[in-house]
Amino acid sequence: MTAYDPDNIFGKILKGEIPSHKVYEDDETLAFMDVMPQSQGHTLVIPKSGSRNLLDAEPEVLAGLIRKTQTVARAVKSAMAADGLRIMQFNEAAAGQTVFHLHFHIIPIYEGVPLKPHSGDMADHSLLATQAEKIRALL
Amino acid sequence: MTAYDPDNIFGKILKGEIPSHKVYEDDETLAFMDVMPQSQGHTLVIPKSGSRNLLDAEPEVLAGLIRKTQTVARAVKSAMAADGLRIMQFNEAAAGQTVFHLHFHIIPIYEGVPLKPHSGDMADHSLLATQAEKIRALL
Repeated sequence: MTAYDPDNIFGKILKGEIPSHKVYEDDETLAFMDVMPQSQGHTLVIPKSGSRNLLDAEPEVLAGLIRKTQTVARAVKSAMAADGLRIMQFNEAAAGQTVFHLHFHIIPIYEGVPLKPHSGDMADHSLLATQAEKIRALL
Repeated sequence: MTAYDPDNIFGKILKGEIPSHKVYEDDETLAFMDVMPQSQGHTLVIPKSGSRNLLDAEPEVLAGLIRKTQTVARAVKSAMAADGLRIMQFNEAAAGQTVFHLHFHIIPIYEGVPLKPHSGDMADHSLLATQAEKIRALL
């Protein structure tokens, strides 16, 4: 497998070189709004330590990440009043991975509302900021 | 949220009331072939302790489950010579959850091969048995 390259967009968010709409942060984890959301409230959870995806992650990092993903997922579902949630994690380009820093997608699902493609348009930043604030308030 | 009901199909697999093509088992975890695979080698990983989905799982159970999912995912990718893998986990019917016992899907992706719908046909059991054996051999 290709080695982790820290010069990816999530690496840059972690270094503060690119802004993000944060919903949660601690020493190991960052959660922020996806800027090309598949649904309203689409949130990403990433570890601060670098791995390409789930396959090369340290088991301890992965275990910590899923715990935080659960915590954030509950807040997302509640804040967004979603009917359900999909947790998705892609490994390698063939599977749809576009950023090569391990991340879990938290995708709220609303009855009767189809998901948008992930290659969709950038969301309005004031809307993302409002959603992040609602989710953050529950964390 | 609705409480966990042990009388679901995965609960019955755990009790041995329904057979499965097992690829991995330990005191906390069972992994087996999905009988309605979205791609060749589609594998499920479940905890032995009962929770409805990720939202109500014990954090320790969830952390252990993702570690085992990583181990099984590596074996699936290698045994099936997949180009990538999707890890998916659905919460509540609106999100596509059909069995209400926490499970991670490991879905191999092959370049140029579209995924089948999850409500597709039952796979051939001798094919599933062969695939399970190939994956098991790496675990």
